[in-house]
Amino acid sequence: MFYFTVDILGTIAFAISGVLVAMEKKLDFFGVLIIAFVTAIGGGTLRDLLIGNTPVVWMRDSVYMITIIITVILAILFVKQLKYLRKSLFLFDTIGIGLYTLVGIEKGLDAGLSPLMCIALGTITASFGGVIRDILCNEIPVIFRKEIYATACIIGGASYFILNQLPIAPNYAFVIAILIVIALRIIAVKFNIRLPNIYRS
Amino acid sequence: MFYFTVDILGTIAFAISGVLVAMEKKLDFFGVLIIAFVTAIGGGTLRDLLIGNTPVVWMRDSVYMITIIITVILAILFVKQLKYLRKSLFLFDTIGIGLYTLVGIEKGLDAGLSPLMCIALGTITASFGGVIRDILCNEIPVIFRKEIYATACIIGGASYFILNQLPIAPNYAFVIAILIVIALRIIAVKFNIRLPNIYRS
Amino acid sequence: MFYFTVDILGTIAFAISGVLVAMEKKLDFFGVLIIAFVTAIGGGTLRDLLIGNTPVVWMRDSVYMITIIITVILAILFVKQLKYLRKSLFLFDTIGIGLYTLVGIEKGLDAGLSPLMCIALGTITASFGGVIRDILCNEIPVIFRKEIYATACIIGGASYFILNQLPIAPNYAFVIAILIVIALRIIAVKFNIRLPNIYRS
Repeated sequence: MFYFTVDILGTIAFAISGVLVAMEKKLDFFGVLIIAFVTAIGGGTLRDLLIGNTPVVWMRDSVYMITIIITVILAILFVKQLKYLRKSLFLFDTIGIGLYTLVGIEKGLDAGLSPLMCIALGTITASFGGVIRDILCNEIPVIFRKEIYATACIIGGASYFILNQLPIAPNYAFVIAILIVIALRIIAVKFNIRLPNIYRS
Repeated sequence: MFYFTVDILGTIAFAISGVLVAMEKKLDFFGVLIIAFVTAIGGGTLRDLLIGNTPVVWMRDSVYMITIIITVILAILFVKQLKYLRKSLFLFDTIGIGLYTLVGIEKGLDAGLSPLMCIALGTITASFGGVIRDILCNEIPVIFRKEIYATACIIGGASYFILNQLPIAPNYAFVIAILIVIALRIIAVKFNIRLPNIYRS
Repeated sequence: MFYFTVDILGTIAFAISGVLVAMEKKLDFFGVLIIAFVTAIGGGTLRDLLIGNTPVVWMRDSVYMITIIITVILAILFVKQLKYLRKSLFLFDTIGIGLYTLVGIEKGLDAGLSPLMCIALGTITASFGGVIRDILCNEIPVIFRKEIYATACIIGGASYFILNQLPIAPNYAFVIAILIVIALRIIAVKFNIRLPNIYRS
């Protein structure tokens, strides 16, 4: 139940982030719906494909698709309010990233992968939806250019494995790791921390 | 046999649509071949991956690849004639969409998916080849911007499940649903029907 | 062991080619790492997904990821030297293509595919990483526009099946086919051989 709630919250957060990007590109209703859908399920779909977990999760359980459709309709109806919430694009995206990173790690553990691969799988789950969203909108994916994004997923993911070595209930470790991902990204953007420039000139 | 014929006709229709787009981009022979190939098998490949039906269909049966290669060679040889047939790009694309939507639904039923997911799978089968084609040619996928496209797939797909409730032979329901998809798209373009604008300003 | 060495060499070659392209786009460290990673494992990942070989190879064996991370760090540290080696982008890419084509064919044979599909699978393994790299960097994939690229993979791949009919040790046939792919591409670029123009006007 706990796990399921996290998954649905992440789906809603990413779907809204997809709607906001798609509406800037002036796509029609189905364009917006598809971008929202792909942003929300893209990372989890690639994760399921990579570990051979098919049919992929959203095809076995209609709750994801129904959640996304309702989210998109509500987001479009209240678009005026959403437009005043520029910062929410960032916030929803960030919450989604935190949630999905840990969901991906959980699935990697279920598939018997090593911690290193679980962290990679969590990072893919968290970031690939946004990558597809940007590719479909014909832009260089934002995570390659700006902000400490993958770094937050990787540090948060690693902290989950460290926390599990301590005498902490697994659910707490799970939530703390999610908050670490979210906090890292917010701090990085707030204080404009970027990865060191690797270009000499 | 009936089913197989439909599948091959869709492959030819989509391959030609791929050739026409690729030639506008002045790609070389293999560029044209690959775009035609991806347009023709992209939707079915994603469909097979999502439901875990591997090796994907075109790898198990050479007939698809051979069909595409012959189609591309013929399309290039008769390019002058094709160029006069601007409208054929639209027509071939539309026929392919109708055929693939129903092929995808059929596969979803075989995989035991719910009607909602079968319709989604049909829409993916029909539209994803064109999406990849546009991404590879560095354009925002046309289906996100123009025309009632996914809508036609969804309504046609839903009509198949409704028709199956009526006392109609399954093959007839299959063909009627294909024609509904094709008719919807032609009517939408002919009368310039678009989805309602969702932007206030 | 022989096979494994070939695989790792191809990984290094492609990762460096990814670093060089990503640095031209001024991506940050993780952007460079991800592009290098995707360039190196993209083709093999699609190959594994298409034949249903999951979890995909790089998730089961950490050696690929560790190889890529070390390669990227070294490539960035010695970027000044690399910048003088413009031609190395081409050379590394070409070596990677030759190696991956044959690795892909080998996997296709293991999966029981026909020679035609093995050659297609080898070509996909060799070229798809570069295709994703270019899509992520928002460019029309270079293999669709320039140089005899897929042609080299296909001729080299076909030559492997021909060589296996002759009284030659399989490992020799494997290496000779790799060299044929590499030689064909170098000759094509050196003498500016291109596929015949298919446009009348």
